[in-house]
Amino acid sequence: MRQTFDETTDPSFGPRHLPLIRKAMAEQGLDGLLVPHEDEHQNEYLPAANDRLGWASGFTGSAGAAVIFQDKAAIFVDGRYTLQVRDQVDQATFEIRDLVEGGVSAYLEQAARPGQAIGYDPRLHSPDALQRLKAAAGKAGAELKPVPVNPLDAAWGEARPAQPAAPVVPHPLDYAGEDSAAKRRRVGEALAAQGAQAAVLTAPASIAWLFNIRGGDVIRSPLPLGQAILAADGKARLFLDPRKVTPELPAWLGNEVRLERPDDLPQALAELKGQTVLVDPAQSSAWYFDTLAAAGAEVLRAEDPCALPRACKNSVEIEGTRRAHVRDGAALTRFLHWLATEAQAELPDEIAAVRKLEAFREATGALKDLSFDTIAGAAGNGAIVHYRPTERLNRKAEAGSLMLIDSGAQYLDGTTDVTRTVAVGEPTPEMKQRFTLVLKGHLALARARFPAGTTGSALDALARQALWTHGLDYDHGTGHGVGAYLGVHEGPQRISKSPSAVALKPGMILSNEPGYYKEGAYGIRIENLQVVTEAAPIPGGERPMLGFETLTLAPIDRRCIARDLLTEEERAQLDAYHARVREAIGPQLEPEARSWLEEATAPI
Amino acid sequence: MRQTFDETTDPSFGPRHLPLIRKAMAEQGLDGLLVPHEDEHQNEYLPAANDRLGWASGFTGSAGAAVIFQDKAAIFVDGRYTLQVRDQVDQATFEIRDLVEGGVSAYLEQAARPGQAIGYDPRLHSPDALQRLKAAAGKAGAELKPVPVNPLDAAWGEARPAQPAAPVVPHPLDYAGEDSAAKRRRVGEALAAQGAQAAVLTAPASIAWLFNIRGGDVIRSPLPLGQAILAADGKARLFLDPRKVTPELPAWLGNEVRLERPDDLPQALAELKGQTVLVDPAQSSAWYFDTLAAAGAEVLRAEDPCALPRACKNSVEIEGTRRAHVRDGAALTRFLHWLATEAQAELPDEIAAVRKLEAFREATGALKDLSFDTIAGAAGNGAIVHYRPTERLNRKAEAGSLMLIDSGAQYLDGTTDVTRTVAVGEPTPEMKQRFTLVLKGHLALARARFPAGTTGSALDALARQALWTHGLDYDHGTGHGVGAYLGVHEGPQRISKSPSAVALKPGMILSNEPGYYKEGAYGIRIENLQVVTEAAPIPGGERPMLGFETLTLAPIDRRCIARDLLTEEERAQLDAYHARVREAIGPQLEPEARSWLEEATAPI
Repeated sequence: MRQTFDETTDPSFGPRHLPLIRKAMAEQGLDGLLVPHEDEHQNEYLPAANDRLGWASGFTGSAGAAVIFQDKAAIFVDGRYTLQVRDQVDQATFEIRDLVEGGVSAYLEQAARPGQAIGYDPRLHSPDALQRLKAAAGKAGAELKPVPVNPLDAAWGEARPAQPAAPVVPHPLDYAGEDSAAKRRRVGEALAAQGAQAAVLTAPASIAWLFNIRGGDVIRSPLPLGQAILAADGKARLFLDPRKVTPELPAWLGNEVRLERPDDLPQALAELKGQTVLVDPAQSSAWYFDTLAAAGAEVLRAEDPCALPRACKNSVEIEGTRRAHVRDGAALTRFLHWLATEAQAELPDEIAAVRKLEAFREATGALKDLSFDTIAGAAGNGAIVHYRPTERLNRKAEAGSLMLIDSGAQYLDGTTDVTRTVAVGEPTPEMKQRFTLVLKGHLALARARFPAGTTGSALDALARQALWTHGLDYDHGTGHGVGAYLGVHEGPQRISKSPSAVALKPGMILSNEPGYYKEGAYGIRIENLQVVTEAAPIPGGERPMLGFETLTLAPIDRRCIARDLLTEEERAQLDAYHARVREAIGPQLEPEARSWLEEATAPI
Repeated sequence: MRQTFDETTDPSFGPRHLPLIRKAMAEQGLDGLLVPHEDEHQNEYLPAANDRLGWASGFTGSAGAAVIFQDKAAIFVDGRYTLQVRDQVDQATFEIRDLVEGGVSAYLEQAARPGQAIGYDPRLHSPDALQRLKAAAGKAGAELKPVPVNPLDAAWGEARPAQPAAPVVPHPLDYAGEDSAAKRRRVGEALAAQGAQAAVLTAPASIAWLFNIRGGDVIRSPLPLGQAILAADGKARLFLDPRKVTPELPAWLGNEVRLERPDDLPQALAELKGQTVLVDPAQSSAWYFDTLAAAGAEVLRAEDPCALPRACKNSVEIEGTRRAHVRDGAALTRFLHWLATEAQAELPDEIAAVRKLEAFREATGALKDLSFDTIAGAAGNGAIVHYRPTERLNRKAEAGSLMLIDSGAQYLDGTTDVTRTVAVGEPTPEMKQRFTLVLKGHLALARARFPAGTTGSALDALARQALWTHGLDYDHGTGHGVGAYLGVHEGPQRISKSPSAVALKPGMILSNEPGYYKEGAYGIRIENLQVVTEAAPIPGGERPMLGFETLTLAPIDRRCIARDLLTEEERAQLDAYHARVREAIGPQLEPEARSWLEEATAPI
């Protein structure tokens, strides 16, 4: 099994580890220390060796921060994690505060005392966040001081897991669709057009994409941790831990890419003196900005130049992703068949469901990894949006309720992410009404047509309006970008309430995942991935339109649908989708599962 | 008649006036001069005395700029005005360029020569725009120089119209709903919360709102041109031309508002030395920033602190606006009745229609002004979004086509803005299909329910999706804010494709005006004003929702509707709206018009 169900921290972490950290702080003459969740790579997921906030506090959420003083400490989390933080963190050790309202800045302003020295690790903070923190500390008369060695790392010592060193391997052209030299030339030209002579790349996904390589340093994704400097002429320097370099890599990278050690990076940055160098402040920490400025380079703050080209998949990547979805859809359908039949005799618990689904994916023979830990939420657990089953929280499916399963896989040819919500026994009329409203939103977004220039924030309301009309909503975005055998969360595109200036472009893959959550009772989410396409010309239409092609192929539980709430158009759309699922997935299934699928995808 | 149909400029303006301007430039040693459309008040509409771009070039659109060199000149307009500028401007004198693509900056970079001095009037440019222009000139080795006296004004001389000096009068509490002292305290507290001791206010609408005064310096709106300094304790200094001060004004303003002359403003700004002063860079020109900086004040760049409170109308303003809409709806309905009956015998031209409509509004006895020049576009003229009929362009209504009438009025109790598109004879099936698609979008937006925090850009697609589905769209925003006996275009709220961070709040008035335009053939727009309200609790709903109450009351032409394209829900919504119109407007009408309205609002 790839997925585990243990908990890697507990509330004793704070009381046990803080004294060690404070001792190390004192040795550097520090009164305080900033501990952000982010690591040196500013990536969403961390290797265990870099989960400093988790080790200090016990909190394992995907965002947060702590401030440790010699005589007090506070941890900051957002609204998603208010329950989890109380469960994981000792409140006698850490005061719990809101990350968004006020946040770390307001706390520093109020809690720091004049003359105090508060340490920070410049490799862990974005330059903009750091500037706000410095201003806040300054208002209290305290000073933020960069630390040469992070006292937390010093305190962690021998107990700290090793830095990951997964082999970095070529990602063949049959999957990548465009060779690295062409990508580097294309991005280099874009740099030149912005007046830059070079870019510093630190986002692992950008490095993987640009050089057509994959690694495994970050769990659940094939990301190689490293850095690169790309020159406007397409030549590059790539900084990778030599332990990760596989024998075939140098030849794969070719003559125009110099493979170097991470220790060589500071010198390489110093050599950019006098050049205009693009760095993305959302991806690269303050250390890069400080180092380049000290070297006499002119820093151009702009978006990672690989982000947009990476998001717009080429035809080979899209074709690969389609294949991955057919494979993955068959595995998921086998699981749904099992859940609807065999598992009804004795209702499974969440962990059993997760294991069964992983086994079906493993049986494809193509599984490289899950794309994230499967969420299986039975009854009330389904209402916890960031739930992950553990031995302690594990719960049995309940008759007369719903089970929400959000899962995905990494294959060489593509990355999947799919959520299905299934009836266990007979759902209540309320569950069916809510499910159908979510489905209406999902269908409205899937069939949308829109002109070039339309952003994801302009489309978000299409997925919500059926719920809004009934006084309901959900507290998460509607869609995130997805990579091609890369991260399952990828920018810059997204579909959400937050204003976005990023227009949707052909080749972008996005999730479509409206939901509804009734606390303590049940959760509903229906998620397919879809790729932006040029829509077929519309008779009588005057303007070219974009639209979506749905990639995910798996039945949507008809037992949860209140048929009368769907319009004719919606029924036809659902039936057409189910016909696609039947045709693509049916032939791969064993006779019993296949005839179940026939039923599960029959016209509504 | 209030509206006139002459053209105030012609293409000879450029060849006649440029030599005068160049002479005045030479006297100041200038090689070039920037001529923005904006005036000292950064307001959308200009008094004739401040239409410098119009006088220099002949171009009268609502946005644009020119750069005049001694040996060449260029004028810059956006996509809305590409036809109009060719009609109004002599192209041997001015090169025509795109305002958005590249714009003035790109031109300066390429057209300026090393060592040149290019003049600008610091009172006319926003600080951000100016910074970009300075950088561009710098790249060409030229320098932008502030001018103490605008050479264009010197050249204009005696021919320049006088500055407007319309009387400034109290706006009674029966209409304003909140006294000025309470408003000043409220805004003052918001200033203090932002750490500012004072704000400089330059937006005429903010000054009118804050002091409960109205003027008439800007055509079609009751705006008084002036400036104010508001202190965080609610006390204020108001700078108005003494010719505009009516006898009752000082008492109305009370003890806490010091009435001063515009000439006193520079000294008053100098007295802010050492204070933190809020100035809105979108409303106030670079001159304010430079003057405050030179005086030793700390400038806080932030949104005009009156903008949001002004946009959220109180109950007295909303009640007044409802009354204004009933009155205005009766006038418009009389006009629509005339157009549908008497005018069918001999089809009117656009100017006749505009005059007839103005006469009906004038007959209410309450008309203070039109809220903008009425747009009446017959057949192909209806497809020109920024059309205004003139003697030269005037065109007769055509049988078998459509006429678009966009108009509004200023009343003491409220500001209206309404567009109706009516059939002349029998519309074609295509016209009916397009009209119905626009209507579907209009209805979808009108019935939207949405949670607090939703922005106008999130709702925009609701008004477009029916058109998008058919490969159609319109190239303007869906909704703009509207004042209460103030500007007919008001921020910060809007409903458009452009990303917006401004959440819609109860009391905000917005237009709902999707459209469709077929070049050379016809134009369709359906526009009502609507106010954001707290929606009635929804049975089974879990969250409070916001919604819209439609304010505009006038029939929508049923002859243009393809009934089969409407859903049951849409038909019921239209019928309910028409029933409201019938009940509110019918009793005010003469018997003949009333029975016509009965028919025009019968269930579809």
